[in-house]
Amino acid sequence: MPVLVMKFGGTSVATLDRIRRAAKRVGVEVAKGYDVIVIVSAMSGETNKLVGFVNETSPFYDAREYDAVVSSGENVTAGLMALTLQEMDVPARSWQGWQVPLLTTSAHGAARIEEIPTDNINAKFGEGMRVAVVAGFQGISPEGRITTLGRGGSDTTAVAFAAAFEAERCDIYTDVDGVYTTDPRICDKARKLEKIAFEEMLELASLGAKVLQTRSVELAMRYKVKLRVLSSFEEPSDAAGTLVCAEELIMESKVVSGVAFSRDEAKVTLVTIEDRPGIAASIFGTLAEAGVNVDMIVQNISEKNYQGHKEGVTDMTFSCPVDQLKRAEKALEAARDSGALVFDRLETETEVAKVSVVGIGMRSHAGVAAKMFQTLAQEGINIKVIATSEIKISVLVDRKYMELAVQALHDAFELEKA
Amino acid sequence: MPVLVMKFGGTSVATLDRIRRAAKRVGVEVAKGYDVIVIVSAMSGETNKLVGFVNETSPFYDAREYDAVVSSGENVTAGLMALTLQEMDVPARSWQGWQVPLLTTSAHGAARIEEIPTDNINAKFGEGMRVAVVAGFQGISPEGRITTLGRGGSDTTAVAFAAAFEAERCDIYTDVDGVYTTDPRICDKARKLEKIAFEEMLELASLGAKVLQTRSVELAMRYKVKLRVLSSFEEPSDAAGTLVCAEELIMESKVVSGVAFSRDEAKVTLVTIEDRPGIAASIFGTLAEAGVNVDMIVQNISEKNYQGHKEGVTDMTFSCPVDQLKRAEKALEAARDSGALVFDRLETETEVAKVSVVGIGMRSHAGVAAKMFQTLAQEGINIKVIATSEIKISVLVDRKYMELAVQALHDAFELEKA
Repeated sequence: MPVLVMKFGGTSVATLDRIRRAAKRVGVEVAKGYDVIVIVSAMSGETNKLVGFVNETSPFYDAREYDAVVSSGENVTAGLMALTLQEMDVPARSWQGWQVPLLTTSAHGAARIEEIPTDNINAKFGEGMRVAVVAGFQGISPEGRITTLGRGGSDTTAVAFAAAFEAERCDIYTDVDGVYTTDPRICDKARKLEKIAFEEMLELASLGAKVLQTRSVELAMRYKVKLRVLSSFEEPSDAAGTLVCAEELIMESKVVSGVAFSRDEAKVTLVTIEDRPGIAASIFGTLAEAGVNVDMIVQNISEKNYQGHKEGVTDMTFSCPVDQLKRAEKALEAARDSGALVFDRLETETEVAKVSVVGIGMRSHAGVAAKMFQTLAQEGINIKVIATSEIKISVLVDRKYMELAVQALHDAFELEKA
Repeated sequence: MPVLVMKFGGTSVATLDRIRRAAKRVGVEVAKGYDVIVIVSAMSGETNKLVGFVNETSPFYDAREYDAVVSSGENVTAGLMALTLQEMDVPARSWQGWQVPLLTTSAHGAARIEEIPTDNINAKFGEGMRVAVVAGFQGISPEGRITTLGRGGSDTTAVAFAAAFEAERCDIYTDVDGVYTTDPRICDKARKLEKIAFEEMLELASLGAKVLQTRSVELAMRYKVKLRVLSSFEEPSDAAGTLVCAEELIMESKVVSGVAFSRDEAKVTLVTIEDRPGIAASIFGTLAEAGVNVDMIVQNISEKNYQGHKEGVTDMTFSCPVDQLKRAEKALEAARDSGALVFDRLETETEVAKVSVVGIGMRSHAGVAAKMFQTLAQEGINIKVIATSEIKISVLVDRKYMELAVQALHDAFELEKA
């Protein structure tokens, strides 16, 4: 029988009633003839409670014990989901990570999946079991210890199961009903996308559209797993949600698929820094060691250089999450004090936001950047930094203009039209 | 290094603070030179919450899923205890049942321990680990599913580990500071016992002194595991608590060690039942099928028989928990209706209590029964039923006299004196 993977996040299994509602959806797919693998998260709030216990017990905890503690919430949901399905006369049983076994590396707290042997679960499918309920987010290390997969671990578990069992599709049930052209709370013309390419979803995910974890999309792209994102709070239908799939399955892709944004950015400029080979490596090596996630990087022509006052110097600008700004400043100043870096001063700005347009069509379509800059200029929005990739153009603007920029770009690229 | 087993119940690990307090006690034993195996229960309230979830989900649940769900509370405590010990620089790690592995039967919800291989944990002790924290109450079936051991499962886990690792002692930390001659809430002269024999403890446990589960005492007796019951809320000392041990380790045992009682008894008499071989088997077979736990059984001489009115008839009296009385009546009346049993009528009494004196010394000491009956007679307490074993004499009395009976017997046998 064809296999379907269905993943339910914490809010979709937050209460026994919601577990029942989720189980009904599983029952519908079983009735269609699928053998179903259900991946569950912990009931919402549970994992946070457990993480809180660990942090309070031990600020610098042993990650192996952390994993043993925080993985237990998923075990509870898996058992309850199996019982609920049995009550509906659907043959089901639960599996904990070590029972599958879902084999991972030993990188506790952020383990990577190595292999998912399919024999145990397939044997049970062969005996008439119709649903394997698997505790998400967890696996077992070569040493026999419980591991967890880190942020987005349950989405990743679901996609990995879909790949291993060659599932027809992987449905991710969450509290939003799909992927939108932009955030509907900011732009009321935002439209739900029926389909989106993996590459676009990756750009949107990492830009702040919190629907799917980047890691699960990467994995789906690598193994060509059809991912569907849909709400567990809506009536089910075949057209529900958004299908994330390979580019070639999307017949007519628009040039721009969506507008993403991120509020919590900070901009840092090192003014008048010597312009020599290796200088970028020194700066960003220093920042990486300090654990700063640098996003956009721009090397400007130094004003001073431009005016001919100085030779061989430049300005370097980058952006990072605003809550890492202090750490970045400290690391750079320490490097200056030690003589590792030479620069005049640091300029920082915290009231900035990043706005990006994303679309696979850009690769074969010129003029997107021009249209974007023109649209922002018409609204009187000044661009502070520009960064581009093959399928994305991002700009840093004053945070107060962020909503306006998103709305104007949404209009300009006619994203409200299907 | 000598091994010590320490078990902490739900109230002893109810909060992170209490876990820290328990860990300090473990640290003290490690400092003395012991390798320690710690058995933990779930934080108090957790298991009840999970059992509630299961019952609400599925009234006739799959016991395998029940076990997968309700065992998770212990996993949390085990990890947190290991982390707490590590914070105190005590090398420790947690073990879930399947990791040990604690091998059990497949009787989910009430599995029996089959074997505890010591290799894995001993290997870690060999590498310098000083404390193995084991999640109590759980094991793994031959089919690789998680099992739980049922009521008192954590005490039983502790004793089984002590037996497998030939531990010097098994310390059970609970919310009472030891075993008393009787319940101090009923008799203010009650005295804590320094030592008690396994057999006596078994009688006391099954008679309602809720300190240790019967099953763990049976296991300790079989493997000659020295058990110590002590409070985790008192300052530690070597004289703390009560040692439950083999008779021969108690130099001077008193004739009577304690007075036990049970409030929730009911008395049932089948009046004028035919007196033929097999009649007791019919009655108690019927009751066993109905799930009634019969305690005391007395076959009286029927008054009618005694007065010569009838031949070949008798009266049969038994006691059972008061909440099983309805079930008992229903089963016996159904047996009468079907013709399986013939009797005149059922007489029931619910306002009764059982009071027992327990002591190993009774075996070699006559006159205990006489003294007990005399004491009760002096207080004007009528005895309804008498039952005896080698080391125990139990009587059923009106419930209103229960406290008085306990106090009078405690005085008569001078239990306040050490």
